[in-house]
Amino acid sequence: MKETYAGVRARGGEVEELARRRGFLWQAYEIYGGEAGFYDYGPLGARLKRQLENEWRLFYSLEGFYEIESPNIAPGEVFRASGHLNCFTDLSVVCKGCNSFFRVDAANGIVAGGKCPECGGELVAAGEFNLMFQTRIGVPGGDVEGEKGEGYLRPETAQGMFVNFQRLLRFNRDKLPFGVIQVGKAYRNEISPRQSLIRLREFTMAEAEVFVDPRDKDSHPGFDTVKASVVLIDPAEGEGGALSIEDAVRSGVIANEYLGYHIAKVKEFLEKVGIPGERLRFRQHRKDEMAHYARDCWDAEFLSERYGWMEIVGIADRGDYDLSAHAASSKEELSVHTPDGKIIPHVIEPSYGIDRIIYAILESSYGEEQVGKDKRRVLHLRPALAPVKVAVFPLLNREELKREAREVFHVVRRELIYVEYDDSGSIGRRYRRQDEIGTPCCVTIDYQTLDDRTVTIRNRETMEQRRAAIDGLVRELKKEMERIRDSHV
Amino acid sequence: MKETYAGVRARGGEVEELARRRGFLWQAYEIYGGEAGFYDYGPLGARLKRQLENEWRLFYSLEGFYEIESPNIAPGEVFRASGHLNCFTDLSVVCKGCNSFFRVDAANGIVAGGKCPECGGELVAAGEFNLMFQTRIGVPGGDVEGEKGEGYLRPETAQGMFVNFQRLLRFNRDKLPFGVIQVGKAYRNEISPRQSLIRLREFTMAEAEVFVDPRDKDSHPGFDTVKASVVLIDPAEGEGGALSIEDAVRSGVIANEYLGYHIAKVKEFLEKVGIPGERLRFRQHRKDEMAHYARDCWDAEFLSERYGWMEIVGIADRGDYDLSAHAASSKEELSVHTPDGKIIPHVIEPSYGIDRIIYAILESSYGEEQVGKDKRRVLHLRPALAPVKVAVFPLLNREELKREAREVFHVVRRELIYVEYDDSGSIGRRYRRQDEIGTPCCVTIDYQTLDDRTVTIRNRETMEQRRAAIDGLVRELKKEMERIRDSHV
Repeated sequence: MKETYAGVRARGGEVEELARRRGFLWQAYEIYGGEAGFYDYGPLGARLKRQLENEWRLFYSLEGFYEIESPNIAPGEVFRASGHLNCFTDLSVVCKGCNSFFRVDAANGIVAGGKCPECGGELVAAGEFNLMFQTRIGVPGGDVEGEKGEGYLRPETAQGMFVNFQRLLRFNRDKLPFGVIQVGKAYRNEISPRQSLIRLREFTMAEAEVFVDPRDKDSHPGFDTVKASVVLIDPAEGEGGALSIEDAVRSGVIANEYLGYHIAKVKEFLEKVGIPGERLRFRQHRKDEMAHYARDCWDAEFLSERYGWMEIVGIADRGDYDLSAHAASSKEELSVHTPDGKIIPHVIEPSYGIDRIIYAILESSYGEEQVGKDKRRVLHLRPALAPVKVAVFPLLNREELKREAREVFHVVRRELIYVEYDDSGSIGRRYRRQDEIGTPCCVTIDYQTLDDRTVTIRNRETMEQRRAAIDGLVRELKKEMERIRDSHV
Repeated sequence: MKETYAGVRARGGEVEELARRRGFLWQAYEIYGGEAGFYDYGPLGARLKRQLENEWRLFYSLEGFYEIESPNIAPGEVFRASGHLNCFTDLSVVCKGCNSFFRVDAANGIVAGGKCPECGGELVAAGEFNLMFQTRIGVPGGDVEGEKGEGYLRPETAQGMFVNFQRLLRFNRDKLPFGVIQVGKAYRNEISPRQSLIRLREFTMAEAEVFVDPRDKDSHPGFDTVKASVVLIDPAEGEGGALSIEDAVRSGVIANEYLGYHIAKVKEFLEKVGIPGERLRFRQHRKDEMAHYARDCWDAEFLSERYGWMEIVGIADRGDYDLSAHAASSKEELSVHTPDGKIIPHVIEPSYGIDRIIYAILESSYGEEQVGKDKRRVLHLRPALAPVKVAVFPLLNREELKREAREVFHVVRRELIYVEYDDSGSIGRRYRRQDEIGTPCCVTIDYQTLDDRTVTIRNRETMEQRRAAIDGLVRELKKEMERIRDSHV
């Protein structure tokens, strides 16, 4: 059934309303009027986020990647070398009518001489702004190490891995290729962030840097395991469409096996956490939109009902740009000795925007259906990501049922941790509350429980209930969650 | 056997050397000469840290606490209200001889008119410095929301929980008490950080805020479960010593049950992650060292061989300071309606310094022994924190053994994730390499493996080896790790 565009936009809005109301996501500093570009993850959102980050770590750890954690603040030298202080800028325009500033964004008609989206006034050029947040390290004039004190908040986690290249290479016993990951905050002082989670000034990235001998980029040892994967490709030049990774690489649409391998892995991960493959495409950057460090870049884009196609992951070939730049600036050797001489490794970088992926997961998971007179809202989250795994209810508000339910709650929580107890309101209302936050299983204690020590387990997807013994309940709940997980595939 | 002080200091140094060499901890930005007060967690350190943070989350989640995630950057209003912009300062002195700046630290003899620890010159007062890192949010003069643009990096994660109090209360269905946790970066622009992990400018905190009706502070519902716990107490006034939590609270040495309960929980957690109880004491702040927001504060201190007693956790009674301050500044109501009227909750706050706890874990875990001509260095880490769980070796560098070992490696890694394969050097040297990073189990494949599909499992603590079948190996390894865990208790 086709929906009108307005209907679809409204539905996007319902997800955001639910996320706010139920404690997934909150505009930050609201008691002080809110601060644009900053968000809080509430109790349910923080759990979803943590679990997503851990799934991501697991995914790349199984590929043999090492995780590191480097600081959010870096001295100026790092970003002078990396090019961010010179090149990491956005053009802005200002409205002559209402004084609002906007980032120049030709796709949305925001250019000098256009009309202001707020008041219809004329937009005029207002200059280039660097997107780095600046700060000062140390007491003015007062540090024994003689540091100059110019500091910045990182705009990507990647530089922390590049400046540690020598140590990481040694950790890997001087062999290429190897992969390093980092999950953490990054900061971009956007000119006028307006779109909730989509354009934040402080956000979370999960980045992987693959260091590879440039002569090996055309043959990835794991290529056979991904070559049959089919992805929707939108290349900068020539024909795209649904292609197998193998065809895309062999025909030159994707430049090399390393890029192809990592594009396939990105798709695999996004599907694993609940984003449908049919709402994903891989779009190659056009020459005029490439970041200063990239020689090739593909965006994984998610088709949002509310925002249209939006970038959620970038897979860049950074070549030897960063290592060469830091080697030149620091006068340290950031190269590798191979039997055929000294080389500077190339870097392939899958870079995930965690907040946008969370938005994409929430939007793709959200469903509504009419049940009698009620609207049933459900988040069809993968059980691994659900912020509450199990909710335990007494069927009725009677002391003997509540006592038993609390005992079951404590037993289940000891193992599954994220478990809730709820005895307020009708049982139907309690099921709806849990459906809305994506809780896979509800356990209900009734009078039969007191007789035969069995409870009901309700499955979020089928709404079916079955009886199970309290003895062995955790095992049964795990099985039920596996069923829900498998029903998604 | 008593060691000399110099010997002990050297041993502290050995741990730091090991941590650097094996990829736990690195001075940040070393290729640019290093930046004081900033550290990188290398591949092993980042895993240890992540696992420690997850243990901490689990610990407080089982207490029913909710986790949130709020931004690192906050607008000026937040810290003007919280008092940090006025009160969060350190006194400094400067050396007339070498121009070095120092934080005034009477305990270490650093005062105006004293001698410079670097060159022996005279120290003179150099003023008060605010420890907040400042930045600017948005384009100068260019934000439609009319924000003033004054931003700061948070010096504690706590404020993010206070400014969200209304939402958190609603999430908890308007009931007290409840607890909220947050794990994340905090930033303090220290005057002259010199002691590796001990005084960082960017560090990780794990904070819990317990919101409680002030009239209930004297009776914690879980007090009975902790009252027998014995802690070493150093109160601001009167007698201290080894006291049970119950005696300490009943005699008024610890002011109320909520503080007592959380002091006991801090000790329980620290012991759980491998810090021996006999190297911990709880020291009450003297009146002149209390933070501006605290009405009472206890530090959990670790007795370091290298640094002496050092604070690793603070447990503060912040009273209604923060909620009252934000209510007054924001004109929002941050109070709770109870049957007996409207109250402002009090806050009890256990605040953990994750980096210092990591230092304490490494130092407490480190052991050396002479084995023949070699020195055997071992990190006796809890298996849950060990960055590598299992290492898999072929006994000899022969293709048929290596092939089999790689297969075993892949099978074990699929389940235990942090598993290494190593075939370089003698088997003894490989065991030493793993002991040094605290790997609980090593699995060796030998010629008998090819005959009967069994391998040896070596236990890090006993160095004993036993044979086990490849079929069911993961289960056996888990059992071995449980044995190692239990041997610590």
